Amino acid sequence: MRIARSGPAGQETPVVGDGAGRWFDAASTVADFDPATLAEPERLDLLAQALADGRLPELAVPTRFGPPLSGIGKIVCIGLNYRAHAAETGAAAPAEPILFLKTPDTVVGPNDEVLVPRRSVKTDYEVELAVVIGRTARYLDSEDDAAAVIAGYAISNDVSEREFQTERGGQWDKGKNCETFNPLGPWILTADEVADPQALSLRTWVNGQARQDGTTSDMIFGVNHLVWYLSQFMVLRPGDVINTGTPAGVAMGVNDFAYLRAGDVVELEIDGLGRQRQTLGQA
Amino acid sequence: MRIARSGPAGQETPVVGDGAGRWFDAASTVADFDPATLAEPERLDLLAQALADGRLPELAVPTRFGPPLSGIGKIVCIGLNYRAHAAETGAAAPAEPILFLKTPDTVVGPNDEVLVPRRSVKTDYEVELAVVIGRTARYLDSEDDAAAVIAGYAISNDVSEREFQTERGGQWDKGKNCETFNPLGPWILTADEVADPQALSLRTWVNGQARQDGTTSDMIFGVNHLVWYLSQFMVLRPGDVINTGTPAGVAMGVNDFAYLRAGDVVELEIDGLGRQRQTLGQA
Repeated sequence: MRIARSGPAGQETPVVGDGAGRWFDAASTVADFDPATLAEPERLDLLAQALADGRLPELAVPTRFGPPLSGIGKIVCIGLNYRAHAAETGAAAPAEPILFLKTPDTVVGPNDEVLVPRRSVKTDYEVELAVVIGRTARYLDSEDDAAAVIAGYAISNDVSEREFQTERGGQWDKGKNCETFNPLGPWILTADEVADPQALSLRTWVNGQARQDGTTSDMIFGVNHLVWYLSQFMVLRPGDVINTGTPAGVAMGVNDFAYLRAGDVVELEIDGLGRQRQTLGQA
Repeated sequence: MRIARSGPAGQETPVVGDGAGRWFDAASTVADFDPATLAEPERLDLLAQALADGRLPELAVPTRFGPPLSGIGKIVCIGLNYRAHAAETGAAAPAEPILFLKTPDTVVGPNDEVLVPRRSVKTDYEVELAVVIGRTARYLDSEDDAAAVIAGYAISNDVSEREFQTERGGQWDKGKNCETFNPLGPWILTADEVADPQALSLRTWVNGQARQDGTTSDMIFGVNHLVWYLSQFMVLRPGDVINTGTPAGVAMGVNDFAYLRAGDVVELEIDGLGRQRQTLGQA
């Protein structure tokens, strides 16, 4: 099932998609797609059953998708998690996952404007597989326990300002938390419909030019390992999001690609998770 | 005015203190102390007036204070911001503020149990002046604009696991976000009652032994500078919290103090902002 939220910014309502391009009103079954709803998987099951039975009112295809989740608790990000991306930045492959954070108020819809920060010269894109947590995870015993806490998957653009991130006095968070820096969606695909999260292609274009073209099979630490690992350092809760890292092809890499400027158009795609399209503006 | 929340964990109600040890029910005027309430300063003014006029019902002194703020949006932390603390860790004084993040779900009440994480050998304390944001700040023009966006001040214990923070593969956030790692309160003192945030003493004891004894006058970057600076990299919103750094005397420093273990008692104090007391438990 595709979980999404449509409508004007701040007034989104919950909708579900059937995977064939049709969208249906979910408001009769859930108040919103938020941590409380994700924590009740039986409610999502009811919704899936209503969708399968044809009992949900069909809608016109939404003209705007918002973030597919409201009330996000935290966004945990993994750095240098693709072999080819670590290599392109000149870094060694990490021995264990590198962890940093984005704040939930950086999240915007998948096609909303992304703002180049003032005084920015190195604004960059990063297509990432986002993992959405559905059950609390605290000191999981093994990777085998990870799948049970994952509600679904989505596209995340982990927008980054590289000068702020690496040349302004330590700690990457400084370049990761500018306004509008985390487009999410258009939808969350529930985990039951993702046969293998380590076999998804991820792609980015800037102004129509291909930039990133990778696969989650190139991850150094796979999704289940990350969920297990993070649960040793923090509590993962329903509605938390993990940005699992980006493949090669970012502007920071060795490709001599230009950084983003106002007016640029970024498009991102992951198999089964839809497509994002952002026009850059100036903060 | 002292803003606080009292009651069992998860069921706190808003209370205000008169500064002379008496506490009053604030629930008739505000639903909670949360971002929406902070964003309405006129409502806080009404509350202060009701307190001054003796119109609020007096309560028994609370037996438990929760965090003085619910719905915190983000916690932005500043590293190495006291001259003597930077020196004790062997680091140079930073040229500009070092920024990292804690997630809001690390926040507990000022006297709640703090858990030593599993496999932790270097759990540490950090008394800090917390700045609570009351109005949105986006690209402030100068430090002179900072005071107008500050709602008040509180004590924060920026609990840290030093091995996780610095020896486990980059980025401090890994050692800053364990469960219960941010005791906050007991109260927020509204900014109108803090004559000079750069003239406050901060103290810590562990099992009764003095550890930290500093003053905010030793900050490398003062409160107004920090608020202005951060607003160039992210949007600060009502209900956001800034942990402004810790003075010398932490276990990571040169004093040969022991790291924290289950059963230890940590006490923290800042002039005018009350006192915290945590017993350490084991996660």
